[in-house]
Amino acid sequence: MSSDHEAASTDLIARRKRLLGPAYRLFYEQPVQFVRGEGVWLYDPAGNAYLDAYNNVASVGHSHPHVVQAIARQAAVLNTHTRYLHETVLDYAEKLLATFPAEISQIMFTCTGSEANDLALGVTSALAELSPSLGLPMPKDSHARLVPAPRSAGDDTGDIFARHVRGALDDMKKNGIRPAGLLVDTIFSSDGVFADPAGFLRPAVEAMRAAGGLFIADEVQPGFGRTGEQMWGFARHGLIPDLVTMGKPMGNGHPVAGMAARPEVLAEFGARSRYFNTFGGNPVSAAAGIAVLEVIESEGLIENARRTGAYLRGQFQQLQARHPLISEVRGAGLFFGVELRHGGPTGRPAASETAAIVNMLRERQVLISAAGPQANVLKIRPQLVFTTEHADLLAEKLDQVLQALK
Amino acid sequence: MSSDHEAASTDLIARRKRLLGPAYRLFYEQPVQFVRGEGVWLYDPAGNAYLDAYNNVASVGHSHPHVVQAIARQAAVLNTHTRYLHETVLDYAEKLLATFPAEISQIMFTCTGSEANDLALGVTSALAELSPSLGLPMPKDSHARLVPAPRSAGDDTGDIFARHVRGALDDMKKNGIRPAGLLVDTIFSSDGVFADPAGFLRPAVEAMRAAGGLFIADEVQPGFGRTGEQMWGFARHGLIPDLVTMGKPMGNGHPVAGMAARPEVLAEFGARSRYFNTFGGNPVSAAAGIAVLEVIESEGLIENARRTGAYLRGQFQQLQARHPLISEVRGAGLFFGVELRHGGPTGRPAASETAAIVNMLRERQVLISAAGPQANVLKIRPQLVFTTEHADLLAEKLDQVLQALK
Repeated sequence: MSSDHEAASTDLIARRKRLLGPAYRLFYEQPVQFVRGEGVWLYDPAGNAYLDAYNNVASVGHSHPHVVQAIARQAAVLNTHTRYLHETVLDYAEKLLATFPAEISQIMFTCTGSEANDLALGVTSALAELSPSLGLPMPKDSHARLVPAPRSAGDDTGDIFARHVRGALDDMKKNGIRPAGLLVDTIFSSDGVFADPAGFLRPAVEAMRAAGGLFIADEVQPGFGRTGEQMWGFARHGLIPDLVTMGKPMGNGHPVAGMAARPEVLAEFGARSRYFNTFGGNPVSAAAGIAVLEVIESEGLIENARRTGAYLRGQFQQLQARHPLISEVRGAGLFFGVELRHGGPTGRPAASETAAIVNMLRERQVLISAAGPQANVLKIRPQLVFTTEHADLLAEKLDQVLQALK
Repeated sequence: MSSDHEAASTDLIARRKRLLGPAYRLFYEQPVQFVRGEGVWLYDPAGNAYLDAYNNVASVGHSHPHVVQAIARQAAVLNTHTRYLHETVLDYAEKLLATFPAEISQIMFTCTGSEANDLALGVTSALAELSPSLGLPMPKDSHARLVPAPRSAGDDTGDIFARHVRGALDDMKKNGIRPAGLLVDTIFSSDGVFADPAGFLRPAVEAMRAAGGLFIADEVQPGFGRTGEQMWGFARHGLIPDLVTMGKPMGNGHPVAGMAARPEVLAEFGARSRYFNTFGGNPVSAAAGIAVLEVIESEGLIENARRTGAYLRGQFQQLQARHPLISEVRGAGLFFGVELRHGGPTGRPAASETAAIVNMLRERQVLISAAGPQANVLKIRPQLVFTTEHADLLAEKLDQVLQALK
């Protein structure tokens, strides 16, 4: 980076702090400014291209022309809300629901994944309130129990996770709380990416259902083909959820999110509650959503996520063979957690090396991030349009950086 | 409406119920489908034009070309998030903050007005937690107190409202709750539109500030020139808030919202909390926001809201003189509450007539709605680009409908 650009960047950081206040954070020790995006590439003001192996929002590629055109076309015609009749939101609902098992046949729209999860919790609470109360007064915020995420991929992953869920259910019972449901990110993104063995979620979901609760699949990160082979993360586990929340890649950057549901779950909620979201399900959001589904379909992106994902996984495994710092390579499709430890799988978490690698890759114009409770997992989520050439470039740079760290 | 269109509309309603479930509601006894919007007009599939005197989201006019172009242009170039540096969000922050008193100099972005209000409550709770606790354990959801909205515009409106606020403050003190702030929609939209006398909010805000709490102005509905003469509803009251939340018309339909703040209010929050919103403050949202401000400015829409608003108010007052059902005409700029009662200002609320008028106007291709706890207030919020010709048409149709009701 030239000193001119460094100075401009410093100015921008100061201006940002002045205008947006102190709560915002930037990525990287040396934050990066982008002015243009195309496919898997982001460009800084000097025209340098960065390989994007992180951003899971513009999932079908930055500024994808088909999505951009859909947004522009619909915005020029009409943008209203769901209290008038409009076909586009119904066309979108139909097309999106067709990607789900037949049991999940209704959808409600929000603007963000958080709103979708809030809506799911609202629906499940409404159901829980219908049940005979056990009569114990409980402060509202103690109704939830947090269970530990899986720690590695093994034959006992499902049993261990289910044991934690059963433990939480017992504790809730003891405290007079009727369990409303189990809410799980089906690839445990923020916990460090846990996908395997496929199906490990089943015993935990069975335990929740036996206790009368629902299974809510949070597909905000794993959804829309990210995990390869299938559209939704829950499908890898052979499960059919009661509620599914989704967001981030849904409009390739346009703010659209939603909650799909089994109709029997919504029936009681709908009889007792009205739902309206000012921007949620507007015709432009719906047009963006349709365009994203069309691109996933026409460009075969789920198959590409599977194929390029498998190739990239192979690359990471080769790196693991050469760099003992890599203790585990996890993931599904184009969503990877590459865990770093000193001294093998049970060794000390390599948090500072993880941060160093993320920053060194940024200097080499490759974008990834870190995750996990110990911040020792490289979070790698390339665009679904990644090719083997992009995978080679990513692996080559990661190899260089791991080499430089030695 | 032809029977063909009626049948199509019935099909669409059934399809909608099947796909979106039972919680969504439609406007009107005979719901209306729109396929195109332009300026103050919405068009149904048969090409009939409806005068829009209700929708306060597409506030600078439906599908305004300047806003549509800004969205299309930026979406084609780049749409990322606030963890990278990007100038457009800062340009927008600067331009938007320039419309506030100098004391309010920072802004944070969300996607919806609800998210903006949640953020404001988060910031104020963070401040409240800093204070010496009174040591009483309190269930979280009992921390809020609801005070009655004003009931009419009079010399004592401010005193009555302040008395309610002081009563709530006393009750909070008794219960060991430290007041965090007073959150007010500065035109009391859902309560039936209470704007006058300008300044009536001051004593209540003084009472809250004396008790150590903040004043949070909810400008989701009154903001962006809606009230005429000024950009923000709080300005009519001669107040400078600590936090301001905004949404709906901010992107003329594009999902963008935010919270502006005095920096001293954000300082502590920012030191203790990080803030990130996946879609919030993205470059496309920012471009849409800038374009809306440019249109408000270049088309003189605040002055137009004042001028056309005053003209329309005159029309409503003429109708009031001829139709005793109208008990009060309230509002500011282009935001009206026309209250309907049998037998004058203290008479029985005319809720069924209010609903009938809203539906009869829809049959005459004019869009308004109803508000107020007794559902007896016509809520009229024309686009800011309304002209006196549009005002005449609206008043003429309302006159016909009031006549038909006699």
